[in-house]
Amino acid sequence: MDMVQKILKGDKRSIARLITLIENQAEEVRELLKQLHKFTGKAITIGITGPPGAGKSSIVNFLAKKFREDNKKVGIIAIDPTSPFTGGAILGDRIRMQDLTLDEGIYIRSMGSRGALGGLSRASYDAVKVLDAAGMDYIIIETVGVGQSEVDIIKLADIVVLVLIPGMGDEVQAIKAGVMEIADIFVVNKSDLDGADRLITEIQLNLDLNQDKNRIKPPIIKTVATAGEGIAELNITIKDIHKRLHDSGLLQIKRKARICQELQELIREIHIKQIVSSFEAKIDIFTEKILKKEIDPYTAALAILNNKNGYISID
Amino acid sequence: MDMVQKILKGDKRSIARLITLIENQAEEVRELLKQLHKFTGKAITIGITGPPGAGKSSIVNFLAKKFREDNKKVGIIAIDPTSPFTGGAILGDRIRMQDLTLDEGIYIRSMGSRGALGGLSRASYDAVKVLDAAGMDYIIIETVGVGQSEVDIIKLADIVVLVLIPGMGDEVQAIKAGVMEIADIFVVNKSDLDGADRLITEIQLNLDLNQDKNRIKPPIIKTVATAGEGIAELNITIKDIHKRLHDSGLLQIKRKARICQELQELIREIHIKQIVSSFEAKIDIFTEKILKKEIDPYTAALAILNNKNGYISID
Repeated sequence: MDMVQKILKGDKRSIARLITLIENQAEEVRELLKQLHKFTGKAITIGITGPPGAGKSSIVNFLAKKFREDNKKVGIIAIDPTSPFTGGAILGDRIRMQDLTLDEGIYIRSMGSRGALGGLSRASYDAVKVLDAAGMDYIIIETVGVGQSEVDIIKLADIVVLVLIPGMGDEVQAIKAGVMEIADIFVVNKSDLDGADRLITEIQLNLDLNQDKNRIKPPIIKTVATAGEGIAELNITIKDIHKRLHDSGLLQIKRKARICQELQELIREIHIKQIVSSFEAKIDIFTEKILKKEIDPYTAALAILNNKNGYISID
Repeated sequence: MDMVQKILKGDKRSIARLITLIENQAEEVRELLKQLHKFTGKAITIGITGPPGAGKSSIVNFLAKKFREDNKKVGIIAIDPTSPFTGGAILGDRIRMQDLTLDEGIYIRSMGSRGALGGLSRASYDAVKVLDAAGMDYIIIETVGVGQSEVDIIKLADIVVLVLIPGMGDEVQAIKAGVMEIADIFVVNKSDLDGADRLITEIQLNLDLNQDKNRIKPPIIKTVATAGEGIAELNITIKDIHKRLHDSGLLQIKRKARICQELQELIREIHIKQIVSSFEAKIDIFTEKILKKEIDPYTAALAILNNKNGYISID
């Protein structure tokens, strides 16, 4: 109870503690989130993604400061790809964000994409909820978009900002299908570089070719994030897009999709725990059988699920 | 039947077709894999991982040629990270491997890590099985080790080769916990560069500190893969390690773990499909309730799983 009250008042230490509990999948998390749930839904969530080196962290940095000028509270969740080999580069980005942490109205949290399959999205949804209940007006979720799971998370933000830069080679063609479609706003960062206008033309062309009447056509904003250029316009555009998404009912549809996905994941997760532990002994027995080529894995899985104990003929 | 016979004879087109069916999760795959299962287990699987730019593809390239000198058949599965933004670099690696495809005794397949959660490992296991049944003596699985899921796959190869290079900054410290432990053989590639000896010392030190009596202490091989240097030694070391793993019973333990994991994944996957589809209507209803803050997602998930229809009080 105490922790919930503190979080509702925006206490950073309590927020941090609960998110750590979420990451560790602690038992008590469920009850705490249950109590927080009714206080959620007020924050605007903004997903920011793009290739490594596109300047996402700089944009987040300046955007957060811009939100603060309007006296809004800002939560930032930076999702790190879990590479066993990387380290430096990403850490560096995070360090650049450090000066934001001195601001009482900003809470930054870095979350690893490590852990169980499906764990990433669940943990990050839950973290967003904590920040939402804690009274953040804007919650920025930043990922380098390394994998499908990161894209899946971002996709479910209220507003998705896709950051691109000139000189990525075949530019828009290099962006795999499915990523262009999730963007509500395009940012062409480092727009002082050669090729920025060509990139914009390519994005335009792609948008014209793939027009979707059920969506708002995404605007394209030019920025030079390291100098803070274009951030004011991005801020205005975010507010405008948010209003249009809200008024058209599209925002509600997105939020429903997010809840629906979350619910499905939870059902899977809870159920799977029950299932796998209840079948443990059988899994051992059938592993032996598979090893001896007495049965193939798929038939074994079916046999376990169908509660059969005996041998199954192999043809 | 025809396709199975062709695969057993090593027909490349049939192999390719079946792996595509596996990637697309086609219905007929199960029956085909069932028939192939009893012909598997003969190939030696070698997982090769390491950071981007470590020269893994070159090593695979030369190693495959070395295996061919002994008239062994070689299957290669290159697992691409599914970044929506990358493209060029990895493709380039693959192109460098192209000359191998001209060899009748080599089959190369690139697999994306896209798709459903857990889908990567299942699909790659299945692909390994196809190559195994097709009579490959060695199956090399190469990943850039971008995410945990790639590491999970590699971990279950018979022999894991971890490729490192000097000058990665804090060298061994940069490698996250859990990766050092999966290596059966260390390769220090680009060993003509400054810092190679320091890297070797660091690996040695790390191995000495983390000795595990249930494992064979991993040898460290120096290579300059672009020139083919050290590949002969790597070949001999692989054979030696394989023999030692086999004779000690450790190989059998690894293979059992692989089957056990595969079985668990299959059980989950099959079961989840049944579960989620049977609950679809309820998920819709509860999504609305969550949106209206009448219930929180976790309680909703429990309610759906416990087959309750009614409202649940929120405290």
